[in-house]
Amino acid sequence: MTTNAAPPRALIVGAGPAGALMAILLGRRGYRVDAYERRADPRQLPDADVERRSINLGLSHRGITALTRAGVIDDVMRTAVRAKGRVIHASDGRLSFQPYGSNEREILYSISRIALNRELIRHADRMENVRFHFGMRCDEVDRDAATAVFRGDDGRTERVQGDFVVGADGAYSTVRQWMHRNERADFHQEYLDWGYKELLIPAAPGGSSRIELEALHIWPRGDALIVSHPNPDGSHTATVFLPWEGPRSFATLQTETQVMRFFAEAFPDVPGLVPELAREFLGHPTGSLVATRTAPWHHRDRCVLVGDGCHAVYPFYGQGMNAGLEDCLVLDDQLGRHPADRQAAFAAYQNARKANTDALLELVKDNFDELRDTANQPTFVARKKLDLLLHRLFPERWIPLYTMVVHTTMPYAEALRRHRRQERLLRRLGVDAVLALALPALVAARRLAFRPVRGVPSAKARPPLTHA
Amino acid sequence: MTTNAAPPRALIVGAGPAGALMAILLGRRGYRVDAYERRADPRQLPDADVERRSINLGLSHRGITALTRAGVIDDVMRTAVRAKGRVIHASDGRLSFQPYGSNEREILYSISRIALNRELIRHADRMENVRFHFGMRCDEVDRDAATAVFRGDDGRTERVQGDFVVGADGAYSTVRQWMHRNERADFHQEYLDWGYKELLIPAAPGGSSRIELEALHIWPRGDALIVSHPNPDGSHTATVFLPWEGPRSFATLQTETQVMRFFAEAFPDVPGLVPELAREFLGHPTGSLVATRTAPWHHRDRCVLVGDGCHAVYPFYGQGMNAGLEDCLVLDDQLGRHPADRQAAFAAYQNARKANTDALLELVKDNFDELRDTANQPTFVARKKLDLLLHRLFPERWIPLYTMVVHTTMPYAEALRRHRRQERLLRRLGVDAVLALALPALVAARRLAFRPVRGVPSAKARPPLTHA
Repeated sequence: MTTNAAPPRALIVGAGPAGALMAILLGRRGYRVDAYERRADPRQLPDADVERRSINLGLSHRGITALTRAGVIDDVMRTAVRAKGRVIHASDGRLSFQPYGSNEREILYSISRIALNRELIRHADRMENVRFHFGMRCDEVDRDAATAVFRGDDGRTERVQGDFVVGADGAYSTVRQWMHRNERADFHQEYLDWGYKELLIPAAPGGSSRIELEALHIWPRGDALIVSHPNPDGSHTATVFLPWEGPRSFATLQTETQVMRFFAEAFPDVPGLVPELAREFLGHPTGSLVATRTAPWHHRDRCVLVGDGCHAVYPFYGQGMNAGLEDCLVLDDQLGRHPADRQAAFAAYQNARKANTDALLELVKDNFDELRDTANQPTFVARKKLDLLLHRLFPERWIPLYTMVVHTTMPYAEALRRHRRQERLLRRLGVDAVLALALPALVAARRLAFRPVRGVPSAKARPPLTHA
Repeated sequence: MTTNAAPPRALIVGAGPAGALMAILLGRRGYRVDAYERRADPRQLPDADVERRSINLGLSHRGITALTRAGVIDDVMRTAVRAKGRVIHASDGRLSFQPYGSNEREILYSISRIALNRELIRHADRMENVRFHFGMRCDEVDRDAATAVFRGDDGRTERVQGDFVVGADGAYSTVRQWMHRNERADFHQEYLDWGYKELLIPAAPGGSSRIELEALHIWPRGDALIVSHPNPDGSHTATVFLPWEGPRSFATLQTETQVMRFFAEAFPDVPGLVPELAREFLGHPTGSLVATRTAPWHHRDRCVLVGDGCHAVYPFYGQGMNAGLEDCLVLDDQLGRHPADRQAAFAAYQNARKANTDALLELVKDNFDELRDTANQPTFVARKKLDLLLHRLFPERWIPLYTMVVHTTMPYAEALRRHRRQERLLRRLGVDAVLALALPALVAARRLAFRPVRGVPSAKARPPLTHA
């Protein structure tokens, strides 16, 4: 932009992680930024509430890259818990550990969404050209004029004029709806026939964790699934995923007796971890799981979408927020490459990004089957070991899918393509057929075994793969 | 239903072909039927308008089966024109004829949407328990109460109480929107990056047709496509399909010079068929093409969707309306099978039908490529001949895809499965490789040649295949 003209004014709708990160990045570019959020200011919540009330997220390489660029990673990491792998809880109570990668840097960080959001808002709010407006719901967007109407908690409305509007307002994005109104817009929305409910596994007296702290815990049962994330206070937030209808489902778990019988059968170690399990289960709301895809992501140089606003996914790969943060980097890069043509920047952003977030939805759906079905099956475990072994033998040419998705910034679509090529190669070699038989011995011989709980692989540290 | 209770009252929203057919079928079952339509009564349009203003449809076996069941087929056929095959207009002006099937019954009927609609409404309106309300737009549906609010052309609104609501209100269905509001509903909408525009090829003086009357005409050009349907007065309604953007697109055809140069290049015989081509092209509106998929199709025993309301497709297989009429039959059958449990009937209807209309969308997308790209390529023509030859040799075991879709009532999903099996078999036999070389001679020897224009295959008549 020229030095004489006033810098463009960006209206960001939604100040969750993606919206707040966008505020930082646009603020740095010199834009005047006003970010509107319908919820209250998360900085005003008491700390205790932050941990209890917030959903937990797995922050991984893509999100870390984005937060590093924004200069907030150190503050964010202070509230994060390292998760070096998954602890699988089998039906018979046995535990096993699967590391998330082949070296110490290939790990996840469990973080509360609110804690992350607070750090991003704190950093953005320090910039003179960035202002936040909380308790302001977006009622309407004029996509050509780049004006938006916001309604405060007191019912009063305000029409605001921007140069462009950023829709960071989630899966049910108001910006998207106004942007696509009467347009030839593609839109796809599907709900999983499973819902979810959160339970708290509190810390033991004295603040120690009742289960391995530095790990995600998974209870895969095919027709039921629990995933838990650790909190810094030693507690874990467990999410129970179940079908809405059917023999074992939320529909059939209506009384305390039904709930306790179900857990005793399906998750025998959980009643010992969650006090007042039945009351908590019946008292907590059941959430639904939506996935969306859409196009276009922008309207001229006037409106653009980021994060869940243009591609919501199910939570089974821990990539929803990471992908949203990555969107912001790609959009920021394109604004830098097209300083005089914002429409070209928006178009290049969609062009660079949409195929990847479409691929992510495929990856997430596949990973749901893996998480609930196969994570504890011997062939799956052997296959994972083979993948890591091949990765160690040919570190650049063979990369396990999980590694590409979670521990690199390789575009999701490229990760999916490479994975499919690797799968075809294995099939052609007939590996699947002999896997369960021959491999465990081979792996054991090479000492690439999965450790028991509390063990962490001690591979040489290697910088994470990055692909612009 | 019992004889003592008043029969249930059905509110049908939308009185197009599917809504009007539903009125007949529900009326026959003894329901009290009120059908609301936002447009004016099509029976009041002057006949001349009906032919000029209406889009034309290809009525084929599924639609014929439905209209036969409803007892309206004879009246409908009086306004239809037989189309025994397609006339392909090549770029160099050469014409070739491809029959639609292997016998005289495997043909299409070109019919005006309004003419069809009028016949259906006339028949339905003769029933004492069926009433139509025109110029009434549906503003709101209460999915649990089965009430709907209709607004007349004078602005006055009326809330109507039914026992259930049938959404026959098209791709942008209001019933669907109210039924799915805040529900976990899947919804998919995509727009083709091509639009369409209609042109009239008038009859020659004296009322004869300027091109073969009893055929659809196709101008396949890869990046442009024209399809025309014959009208009873000797005219043809031609639909020009083009990309919205790009070198040859609606965006680049803005002046009379551009339009005339485009047609001279791409469709050299069309300027001679359409008087004032450029003025007509620039004056007529450009329509967009939407496809939708959704679930669920019903809410309890209170709301149910039919036709485009639950599955709009692009017009490239001529099946949109046929599938909508078929929906009505399936729903009517299920109401007959579950006389005391309407919710079970609705659920069985969705269950029987959705996989098939999902398959239809796949079929239509594939057929778009065929229509615009390959319909005039030698390998495609040879392949079509092989298909018909194999069908003649093994009439029950080998059925060309087009035949299954258009000339039978075999469920669409089954047609797609059988087609894929047939394709795999051919590939395994290596047929594709030798097709272009060996087959034409073989076909010629068997006299299964495609005739020049005006020829119609004189195969023995065989009743159409039907599969419940």
